[in-house]
Amino acid sequence: MAKKVLKFGGTSLGSIERIVHAAKIVKKEYNNGHKIIVVVSAMSGTTNNLIAHSELISKKFIKRELDVLLTSGEQVTSALIAGSLNDLGVKSKSWMNWQIPILTEGEHTNSRIINMNVKFINEYLESGGVAVIPGFQGISKSGDITSIGRGGSDATAVAIAKIFDTDTCEIYTDVDGVYSSDPKKIPVAKKINKISYEEMLELSSLGAKVMQSSAVQTAMMYDIPLKVKSTFTDRDGTEIFNQENIDYSKVVTGVAYSKDDAKITLIGVEDKPGVAADIFEPLSKNEINVDMVIQNISSDGNKTDLTFTIKRQDKNTASSLIKNNKKIKYETMQMNDKVSKISIVGAGMVATPGVTYKMFRSLAEEKINILAISTSEIKVSVIIDESSTIQAVKKLHKTFNLD
Amino acid sequence: MAKKVLKFGGTSLGSIERIVHAAKIVKKEYNNGHKIIVVVSAMSGTTNNLIAHSELISKKFIKRELDVLLTSGEQVTSALIAGSLNDLGVKSKSWMNWQIPILTEGEHTNSRIINMNVKFINEYLESGGVAVIPGFQGISKSGDITSIGRGGSDATAVAIAKIFDTDTCEIYTDVDGVYSSDPKKIPVAKKINKISYEEMLELSSLGAKVMQSSAVQTAMMYDIPLKVKSTFTDRDGTEIFNQENIDYSKVVTGVAYSKDDAKITLIGVEDKPGVAADIFEPLSKNEINVDMVIQNISSDGNKTDLTFTIKRQDKNTASSLIKNNKKIKYETMQMNDKVSKISIVGAGMVATPGVTYKMFRSLAEEKINILAISTSEIKVSVIIDESSTIQAVKKLHKTFNLD
Repeated sequence: MAKKVLKFGGTSLGSIERIVHAAKIVKKEYNNGHKIIVVVSAMSGTTNNLIAHSELISKKFIKRELDVLLTSGEQVTSALIAGSLNDLGVKSKSWMNWQIPILTEGEHTNSRIINMNVKFINEYLESGGVAVIPGFQGISKSGDITSIGRGGSDATAVAIAKIFDTDTCEIYTDVDGVYSSDPKKIPVAKKINKISYEEMLELSSLGAKVMQSSAVQTAMMYDIPLKVKSTFTDRDGTEIFNQENIDYSKVVTGVAYSKDDAKITLIGVEDKPGVAADIFEPLSKNEINVDMVIQNISSDGNKTDLTFTIKRQDKNTASSLIKNNKKIKYETMQMNDKVSKISIVGAGMVATPGVTYKMFRSLAEEKINILAISTSEIKVSVIIDESSTIQAVKKLHKTFNLD
Repeated sequence: MAKKVLKFGGTSLGSIERIVHAAKIVKKEYNNGHKIIVVVSAMSGTTNNLIAHSELISKKFIKRELDVLLTSGEQVTSALIAGSLNDLGVKSKSWMNWQIPILTEGEHTNSRIINMNVKFINEYLESGGVAVIPGFQGISKSGDITSIGRGGSDATAVAIAKIFDTDTCEIYTDVDGVYSSDPKKIPVAKKINKISYEEMLELSSLGAKVMQSSAVQTAMMYDIPLKVKSTFTDRDGTEIFNQENIDYSKVVTGVAYSKDDAKITLIGVEDKPGVAADIFEPLSKNEINVDMVIQNISSDGNKTDLTFTIKRQDKNTASSLIKNNKKIKYETMQMNDKVSKISIVGAGMVATPGVTYKMFRSLAEEKINILAISTSEIKVSVIIDESSTIQAVKKLHKTFNLD
C-alpha cells in the first residue's frame, strides 16, 4: 500500500465525461489499497477564458483580484471530482487553499508554496477518504488568495508529494509520456520510458511542454520520483527520477526545438571589458530574456562580432533599445527572426566524446547551415534557418538512434 | 454621506460590459461621498450551468461539494468588479466568504447567515476603499463552504446591511422596480413607487420574483429600508419599507397570479374531528405543500366537501397518497389542474371595507367563475379557470385603479 499524489491536468478534466473518467482512475488506485491525494487543474479553456475576461476590463487588471478570479477554476474541478468520487462510492472531500491552508510567499500571480498543514488531510486519508486539492493556488501570510503561475498545478502536486511524504507523484495528462521530440510534428519521435530530472528540464524548457519546469526542479531538489502518463490510455508513461538510476545505453535522450527565437548580430563591436554588460543591461531591465550569446574572437584585436538570441516577440524592443543606447558602439546590426533552435539532450552526453561533432556532421550532411552554437553538460543547441527545422530534427533522430 | 449596500444581480453582471457598467454605478455613488459595500451574484447562467454539470455526474450530487462548486460563481464576479473598480481609479478589494468570515448555520445548500466580522471591512471603508463581497455563501462553524439557497445574494445583501448597520440596501436588478403585476404579460401593470415589506412578500411569493422572499422577511424583521432599481436605467425604482410610512391612497397595491396550481376536491368526506389531519399528514410528510384549504359546511351534518390547492407538479403524488390511505373516507375525488390563482395585495385593505366584495363583483362582471377563495389581512386570493387569467388580472387593475 502506497501513498500517492494523482494530478490531473486541464485536458484530462475538460468535460464532465472526462472528470468522471478521472474519478474512475482514482477509484481503481483507491481499490488497490492506496492512500490518495488528488490534485486538479481547472477545466481546459477555463483559465484562458477568465484571463480574457480580465483583459476586456483592463490589460493591467490588478493582480490581487486576478488571483481571486483565476483560482475559481480549480475550485470547480475540485468539487466536481470529489462529487464524482462520492457518486462512485468512494468517500472523498475537497479542501480549498485556505482550508488546508497552502501557505505561499512572493507576489500575486507568481507565488511559491512554502508550507501546508498536513494534520487534517492525513487523518482523513487514515479514515479511508480521498482528499481532493486544487492546484495552482494558495494563500499568503496575510490571508490573500495567491496563484503560483501558469501550469502551477504541477508544482502543487510536487509540493504535496514532498510535504505529505508520498511514495509517488503521478501526473495524468493528454499525452502518454515524454517523447524524444514532439510526436505531432515529428512522427519518428519515440516515447521515453525513463528520463532524469535534468534531461526532462532541458527538454521541457525547450518546448516539450509535458510538465511545468519549476515542478520538475522541485522534484529534483527533493528527489521525488515522478510518473507522467495519459489519462486516456493504459500505457506505461514516462518515469522521471535521479540520473544515477538511469541506464545510459542511449547517449541522446531527445531532440527539442523551438521556433520562437530571433537572432541579433552586432558587427564591429569594440572589443573591451564592459561592452557585453552595456549591451545586455538595458535588455535585462526591460525583462527581455537573452538565451544564447556567442562572441567571436576579433581578427584585428580591436573589433568583434557579438551574436545573441532572444524571443521573437521581443525583437523590436531589443533593437530599439540597442539603437537608442549611446553607450553601445557598433558598425551594423543584423537581425534574423526566421531561425529555430535545435537541441539534443542527454545525461549520458558528458561521458561520451564526439556527440557534438556527430551532431554538426549530420546537419552538414543535410546541407543545413549552423548560425550559432551553445553547449552545456547535457545539451547541445544550434541555431539554424527555420525552414530546415523538421528536416534537422528527423536527421538527428536517425543519427542518435531515437527513431 | 451614507453607508450603503449596493447589490447587483446576475443579469446586471451578465457580461463584461455589464460588469463595467455596474462598476461605474458604484463609482458614481462613491464619488458622491458614500461608503460602499458591493454584494454580487454570479453572472447570469453560471449557477444553472454549474448545477447542470453536477447533475450530469449525479442527480444526488453530494451537497457539501455542490456548495463548493456553486460558490465559485460569485468569486468570479467579486474579482471582476473589484478589478474593474480599480481600473476606474476606485480603490477596491474583494473579500471571500472565509476571509470576512460570513458565518452560517444550517444544512449545506440551505444555510442561514448568523454573523460576520465587521472590523477589517469597516477599517477598509474608513480608508476610502470599496469592499466587494460575494452573495449567496458563507462558511459553517466547522469551516466548510456553505450556500444559502437560490437567490441568496439578496439575503446576503440584507444581512450585510443589518450587521454593518448601513443606511440603505439597494438591489440593482434587470427590472426597474416592483410592478402591480408582471409587466411583460400585463401591459397595463404599473410600477409601484413605495410598498410595505408585507405587500412585497405577498407579491413575491405569488410570482413577482423581483426579490427573494426570505431577504424581504429579514429586512422587515430588522426594519432595513430596501430600494429595488434597474441597473440599466436611471429611473427611481421601488422603495420597500415599514407599513406605517406608506401613504395608503390606494387600497390595493398589486395583482399577482400564478399558473402552477392544481385543485383537488374530495366530495362526501366524513365531517368529524381529525379528518383534515388524516388527509394532510401524508401530504406534508411527502413534502407536498398545501396552499389554500376550503371546507364547506355539510348540508346533512355528516358529510362535507373539502377543497385544497397544491403545486401542479405534485398532483399525481397527492392523488395516489389519498387513494392509498385507508384512513381517509370520501365518495369521489375531483381534480382540476387547469386553474390559476389570482391575488390582490394591499396593506390598506384591512382598514377598507368592501374590497373583497369589489373583487368578486368585478370578476362576475367578466363572467369568471370563482372556484375557491382564501383571504388574509393584506391579500385576497381566488382560484379561477386558467384560461381567464389575463382577463381577470386586467379587470382587477381597472377595478382598483392600478392601470
